[in-house]
Amino acid sequence: MIKHLFLGFLLLLVNVNIVAQDKPLNIVVFGAHPDDCDIDAGGTAILFAQMGHKVKFVSLTNGDAGHYAKGGGVLAKIRMAEAQEAGKRFGVTYTVLDNHDGELLPTLENRLKVIREIRKWNADLVIAPRPNDYHPDHRYTGILIQDAAYMVIVPNVAADTPPLKKNPVFVYSHDNFKRPNPFQPDIAINIDSVFDQKIYALAAHESQFFEWLPWTNGSLSEVPSDDKERLQWLSKWRASPLDEATQKSLDKWYGDKAKTIKRAEGFQICEYGKQPSDEEIKKLFPMLGKD
Amino acid sequence: MIKHLFLGFLLLLVNVNIVAQDKPLNIVVFGAHPDDCDIDAGGTAILFAQMGHKVKFVSLTNGDAGHYAKGGGVLAKIRMAEAQEAGKRFGVTYTVLDNHDGELLPTLENRLKVIREIRKWNADLVIAPRPNDYHPDHRYTGILIQDAAYMVIVPNVAADTPPLKKNPVFVYSHDNFKRPNPFQPDIAINIDSVFDQKIYALAAHESQFFEWLPWTNGSLSEVPSDDKERLQWLSKWRASPLDEATQKSLDKWYGDKAKTIKRAEGFQICEYGKQPSDEEIKKLFPMLGKD
Amino acid sequence: MIKHLFLGFLLLLVNVNIVAQDKPLNIVVFGAHPDDCDIDAGGTAILFAQMGHKVKFVSLTNGDAGHYAKGGGVLAKIRMAEAQEAGKRFGVTYTVLDNHDGELLPTLENRLKVIREIRKWNADLVIAPRPNDYHPDHRYTGILIQDAAYMVIVPNVAADTPPLKKNPVFVYSHDNFKRPNPFQPDIAINIDSVFDQKIYALAAHESQFFEWLPWTNGSLSEVPSDDKERLQWLSKWRASPLDEATQKSLDKWYGDKAKTIKRAEGFQICEYGKQPSDEEIKKLFPMLGKD
Amino acid sequence: MIKHLFLGFLLLLVNVNIVAQDKPLNIVVFGAHPDDCDIDAGGTAILFAQMGHKVKFVSLTNGDAGHYAKGGGVLAKIRMAEAQEAGKRFGVTYTVLDNHDGELLPTLENRLKVIREIRKWNADLVIAPRPNDYHPDHRYTGILIQDAAYMVIVPNVAADTPPLKKNPVFVYSHDNFKRPNPFQPDIAINIDSVFDQKIYALAAHESQFFEWLPWTNGSLSEVPSDDKERLQWLSKWRASPLDEATQKSLDKWYGDKAKTIKRAEGFQICEYGKQPSDEEIKKLFPMLGKD
Amino acid sequence: MIKHLFLGFLLLLVNVNIVAQDKPLNIVVFGAHPDDCDIDAGGTAILFAQMGHKVKFVSLTNGDAGHYAKGGGVLAKIRMAEAQEAGKRFGVTYTVLDNHDGELLPTLENRLKVIREIRKWNADLVIAPRPNDYHPDHRYTGILIQDAAYMVIVPNVAADTPPLKKNPVFVYSHDNFKRPNPFQPDIAINIDSVFDQKIYALAAHESQFFEWLPWTNGSLSEVPSDDKERLQWLSKWRASPLDEATQKSLDKWYGDKAKTIKRAEGFQICEYGKQPSDEEIKKLFPMLGKD
Amino acid sequence: MIKHLFLGFLLLLVNVNIVAQDKPLNIVVFGAHPDDCDIDAGGTAILFAQMGHKVKFVSLTNGDAGHYAKGGGVLAKIRMAEAQEAGKRFGVTYTVLDNHDGELLPTLENRLKVIREIRKWNADLVIAPRPNDYHPDHRYTGILIQDAAYMVIVPNVAADTPPLKKNPVFVYSHDNFKRPNPFQPDIAINIDSVFDQKIYALAAHESQFFEWLPWTNGSLSEVPSDDKERLQWLSKWRASPLDEATQKSLDKWYGDKAKTIKRAEGFQICEYGKQPSDEEIKKLFPMLGKD
Repeated sequence: MIKHLFLGFLLLLVNVNIVAQDKPLNIVVFGAHPDDCDIDAGGTAILFAQMGHKVKFVSLTNGDAGHYAKGGGVLAKIRMAEAQEAGKRFGVTYTVLDNHDGELLPTLENRLKVIREIRKWNADLVIAPRPNDYHPDHRYTGILIQDAAYMVIVPNVAADTPPLKKNPVFVYSHDNFKRPNPFQPDIAINIDSVFDQKIYALAAHESQFFEWLPWTNGSLSEVPSDDKERLQWLSKWRASPLDEATQKSLDKWYGDKAKTIKRAEGFQICEYGKQPSDEEIKKLFPMLGKD
Repeated sequence: MIKHLFLGFLLLLVNVNIVAQDKPLNIVVFGAHPDDCDIDAGGTAILFAQMGHKVKFVSLTNGDAGHYAKGGGVLAKIRMAEAQEAGKRFGVTYTVLDNHDGELLPTLENRLKVIREIRKWNADLVIAPRPNDYHPDHRYTGILIQDAAYMVIVPNVAADTPPLKKNPVFVYSHDNFKRPNPFQPDIAINIDSVFDQKIYALAAHESQFFEWLPWTNGSLSEVPSDDKERLQWLSKWRASPLDEATQKSLDKWYGDKAKTIKRAEGFQICEYGKQPSDEEIKKLFPMLGKD
Repeated sequence: MIKHLFLGFLLLLVNVNIVAQDKPLNIVVFGAHPDDCDIDAGGTAILFAQMGHKVKFVSLTNGDAGHYAKGGGVLAKIRMAEAQEAGKRFGVTYTVLDNHDGELLPTLENRLKVIREIRKWNADLVIAPRPNDYHPDHRYTGILIQDAAYMVIVPNVAADTPPLKKNPVFVYSHDNFKRPNPFQPDIAINIDSVFDQKIYALAAHESQFFEWLPWTNGSLSEVPSDDKERLQWLSKWRASPLDEATQKSLDKWYGDKAKTIKRAEGFQICEYGKQPSDEEIKKLFPMLGKD
Repeated sequence: MIKHLFLGFLLLLVNVNIVAQDKPLNIVVFGAHPDDCDIDAGGTAILFAQMGHKVKFVSLTNGDAGHYAKGGGVLAKIRMAEAQEAGKRFGVTYTVLDNHDGELLPTLENRLKVIREIRKWNADLVIAPRPNDYHPDHRYTGILIQDAAYMVIVPNVAADTPPLKKNPVFVYSHDNFKRPNPFQPDIAINIDSVFDQKIYALAAHESQFFEWLPWTNGSLSEVPSDDKERLQWLSKWRASPLDEATQKSLDKWYGDKAKTIKRAEGFQICEYGKQPSDEEIKKLFPMLGKD
Repeated sequence: MIKHLFLGFLLLLVNVNIVAQDKPLNIVVFGAHPDDCDIDAGGTAILFAQMGHKVKFVSLTNGDAGHYAKGGGVLAKIRMAEAQEAGKRFGVTYTVLDNHDGELLPTLENRLKVIREIRKWNADLVIAPRPNDYHPDHRYTGILIQDAAYMVIVPNVAADTPPLKKNPVFVYSHDNFKRPNPFQPDIAINIDSVFDQKIYALAAHESQFFEWLPWTNGSLSEVPSDDKERLQWLSKWRASPLDEATQKSLDKWYGDKAKTIKRAEGFQICEYGKQPSDEEIKKLFPMLGKD
Repeated sequence: MIKHLFLGFLLLLVNVNIVAQDKPLNIVVFGAHPDDCDIDAGGTAILFAQMGHKVKFVSLTNGDAGHYAKGGGVLAKIRMAEAQEAGKRFGVTYTVLDNHDGELLPTLENRLKVIREIRKWNADLVIAPRPNDYHPDHRYTGILIQDAAYMVIVPNVAADTPPLKKNPVFVYSHDNFKRPNPFQPDIAINIDSVFDQKIYALAAHESQFFEWLPWTNGSLSEVPSDDKERLQWLSKWRASPLDEATQKSLDKWYGDKAKTIKRAEGFQICEYGKQPSDEEIKKLFPMLGKD
């Protein structure tokens, strides 16, 4: 199946730059660990890439802690290599910042790194977790992006990197937490057509999806050894039914087609940064409403 | 018009200490940058000052980043001078703390500075932004004031400055953000009578209102060069219609008069610090219910 | 009355290990100051202890600031001694971390200390304040426990202390704050049977309940000098009527008995950590539904 | 004897502004704790003050730790009051910065405070400990003054305080440490004429010289209770014979008179800041060569 | 040979408490990494232990970076286990603080940890590297111990741990650096009788002496696999000829016997802490002058 | 003269890669501000570049404070542009790190940046100031490079950048400070042949050499406006006679030729990093002994 997927992946690549007509969009996705961007926005990223838009994944830590049998720089190097492979499979650029996993804090240094990533990518759209996920690194990733949101246009800040001319749109990626507010999927993207490719790309993070995460939930012994079975196993694991709010958002954006959608990624518009109209959202997410 | 305003300003000053009968109230307004206190509570400050109460504006940063063509200490000195001029026009004392703009963090050092400012002014009322405005400096200003709220009465903390005998009332100044909660204007002050003076005082921040802020929203070329026209231009820009919640609050405090009010400043009572009754609110905001 | 209480206390101790049948539960309660755990969960802790379960109180600061006439290490040593005495009266282990009172920040160092306390106690249940109480130390205690919640299972973090095999349940202790959300007592424990013992144990914090706290609210002169009267005075002070939400929770867990309950302690399940079912809650709080 | 000393002190004050002919010199002395400036440069300060020059003592910490029976803000307030009294007795201005004793670090915040103190006093001469004394606070005081030395003339740094037009001379006060280099008394001041007044002024730090320091060296029981005897006791304690290097420096500056000098204070020229010639040294220390 | 050594080790243990007559001495040795104390003072520690004195090794970091193929917590756990084994072989208590290797900084947190270790061991003697070794962790270890030196007697600092009644003697362990001053072996200890045991104990740090250190100097392929050969190989590697200054110090302390000494450990008296006379040195190092 | 110099510069460029025979050397020079590397090692860098070796200048701050009339990001951008121009004139790569001028501290973040610069350049030789120059940024630059010296070979540190296989040689650039030790020019390079080019390259830092530095020493009015005169003026200013130690070092390396040398740059071998023999020094500085 990997080969199959890979062929499909190549075919998809052929389509790139055919769909895209205008100036390509620039999208930066932030995550705390090498695999977070992938989970949160991987399907959407593939769709962007297929249309010729430029997507960058940025992991704010190097993932050097999340494992039961490896650690430190040794693990970080594994994680960085996996991220590069995943980036290829997603069709995106993948950057892993060399901060310790499990130690991310909303420092000025980190904020400036986020500002520079957004500016250097000349981002139209920034995707990041809300500051209320279960992992402190996730939460502080959310805070760091919030803290960078306005500063990307201020020329005296991070003066070595030219400021953006206008504020990008910032959106949060999906989570299930209810306090202080439940996640509200202002936007929901149909990723049915690329779900298999998303799974294939996620699978590049072997030390995460086939080692560490199964270990944490006690299912390490269930991980198949065969590549094809691994993809099926991972696919089953990552497939969660759509919640009501996401379904409602799909209805808004996809109309009648929405009923048939099985997999989606939801995004909530952040109050900081540009506040887009529905028309602007459609331009920022040109796959909206399409299969 | 500047001259006219200035005359009016002098006349208003004449009235000072006539209205006030009892011990004057002490109010501290905190903002992140030199111009934030002014925008958030400038009209209310003028009303306090007219009644003989003592108002202090404290900017937690020196504004040394927010400009496209100036920066650093050079800009900070411009901003400090503008703040002094604005303070005169508002009839308040203006203090600018020498922290870098765009780099404010909720450190202990900064918290202690806030505690000392509140104590030295012997504050009855403290006004500050909520910790959920768009600019990280604004948010951390909100957090710093929250973190100072209880500590102002603890003698062992900031022992060089005598503690307050009782906790002041802390209120948040208005913002438009909805998450995690929308701003709730528990108090709304009619500033129609002093709106022109507020605009005139805001105009003292030339590098902000006629340079940096227009630059950020692309309207730099529209800024008039003539002083009088500048005030009109600024007046038009800063005049936003009252939102529903503010109108409702005005109704509560001004009764029938509320319908005619055009300009107002709203404040939300912070859960930290003293929780005032409506009677106590009226004493703290003696202009409530008046023209 | 102290003697009387003490006898009762001894009698209660006799019952210990009689009620408990299975492996005892391990509970850690976090507070910011030596007396916070006591107020928040003291009654529940006594009930746990009576059933043979193991409770640990951890104060994240040494309480070296909260007093009008003492301070520094001298005060810290008083507070630590009072905590030891209180621990005996509650039947729990009491640890006071040597951090400055009024200066607690959510640093990595402090997070690691919290992680180690939870792991070393092999906690099934962790109790802590929400990050929105009135005192900055309380809020940062809440944040520190949130930041530790997931990390307690990650072996590479705080590698000197073996990680937990599974995430404990984290619950917040009661407070009255409404923003961003009101406290929601998912669980409410009837502490009528141990309220007197709770008061007796609280009274061990002499420098808090009979000196500092009365001083802060202006009632220092009303504090009785007689031990028995002090307990009565303290009992009266700490007895607040049950609010509606707590009553509702008692109804759920105690059924008809709930109507007669006078004193209770409420807990809200934190979204981080294990999310227990009602059945699991009953196992974690085996006193639920009992007198 | 206190009265006697006090009369002498008054007589000395009469002489002030008689000796001084030109523009008075501005001298800032830095110490780590309230009593360090006094020990290091107290006699020299009296001589400066007598000649009409302006001396400021700055303690970088509030002394809130160095005691066996008091601590925290309570102790800080005692120390601040003692410093004020000592300042009067020395004839100098005394500022105590509210940093924790035993926790001084060479942070940017502290460096900026030092810069501002030097600038606001418009210092011609700065006196500070070398960064190799026995107490970490002393060492970091030395580092902080070194780190401030050049920055006092840079306008963009601490922009709220106008920079000095020229670098002051920085000198180190005497210590007995040999590594990496022994203290070299480039300058030695005869303080015989004011030694009694120095002792009287030191005695203002009661909690230091009659409580804490005797406690640390086990001589607390020997401290006299009578004021006069205390001064004699302190005088004996603080009188150390001149070492060879200091004697040699006295020879250079006082010629034949040097042989009769019994008490002196030595200073080493710091390599940072202005490097004065002997002529300039004589102008900076106009008491050199005099009785 | 390991068995042989081990037997010798047991025989040596038999002698323990026979030699020692008076109250045993308490010695703390600080190093940056698990193996540094061992190299610096391992032989001396064995001699102390043989005489019934109590020695504690404290590594300020967990050694989680110094390896080419392992890292993070996984490596830290290996290093901690090796340290426990080494401690047994030396006859000392071994504590490894859980700070990141390669990231040690002279923070207040770390200083307080050092203070507590010294106090809890009731140290008469403290051994630590000079702050000018080649590794930043070594240098900052030196600074941390210097910064703790005076504070160990101040009761208000680290108030949870009773202060020492008197300052210990602090000595630096040997290094070869010349700037700003060459190491001066005020004391030199003959370790010929225990050199084999020192090598055997060092060998417990397998991941250091047989993996990481050989890797860094390109000799990994030369490391024998046989245990006995490993000891010989290590013995050869660690055997450096005595330098002139050490020989001179041996002459002073051992007289004629000094000429025959082959292995020694040198110590320089730190200017902070108690300054011992030669007589006091002999009491602190009771093996001085003996075989 | 600028044109003349430029022609000479071009001619020199022609020679590049002719002299160099073997694998080119990689040299990194660190300075605190954009112009420090240039002053310290500019002539030597030109000689390296002429021989085909690869030199990189790294300024650890962006120079955003050192000016009387400009500041902040605006000044930083000027400084960065000047550095680029200087780099071209020297024939080196010039990197300016975006840290605030006047605020450099020896943080882990900065240490890691230094480590990465050294690794990425695969440095054979690292040049940096000693940690005892007059400006705190210079001193902390020295400390940062010392702290990086060993860590460049540790793979687990800065794991995103492959470690060096062997430690480079670290040398300090010249300064005039005497404490704790005078600078010792172990190596002295004859720069007579490139002195004019060095001056021409320094002149690229217009805001430094023709604005800020003259302002600080009161000679701003003497700065010529004509480009050619500026170079002559700067040349005169920067030409200091050789001190005795440097002359002695030139004698060692240049023999009889040394007497005629007028301009030189001296370097002291740092005790950290590789300790080269004289033969190795000659290979590292292949211009030694040549005209």
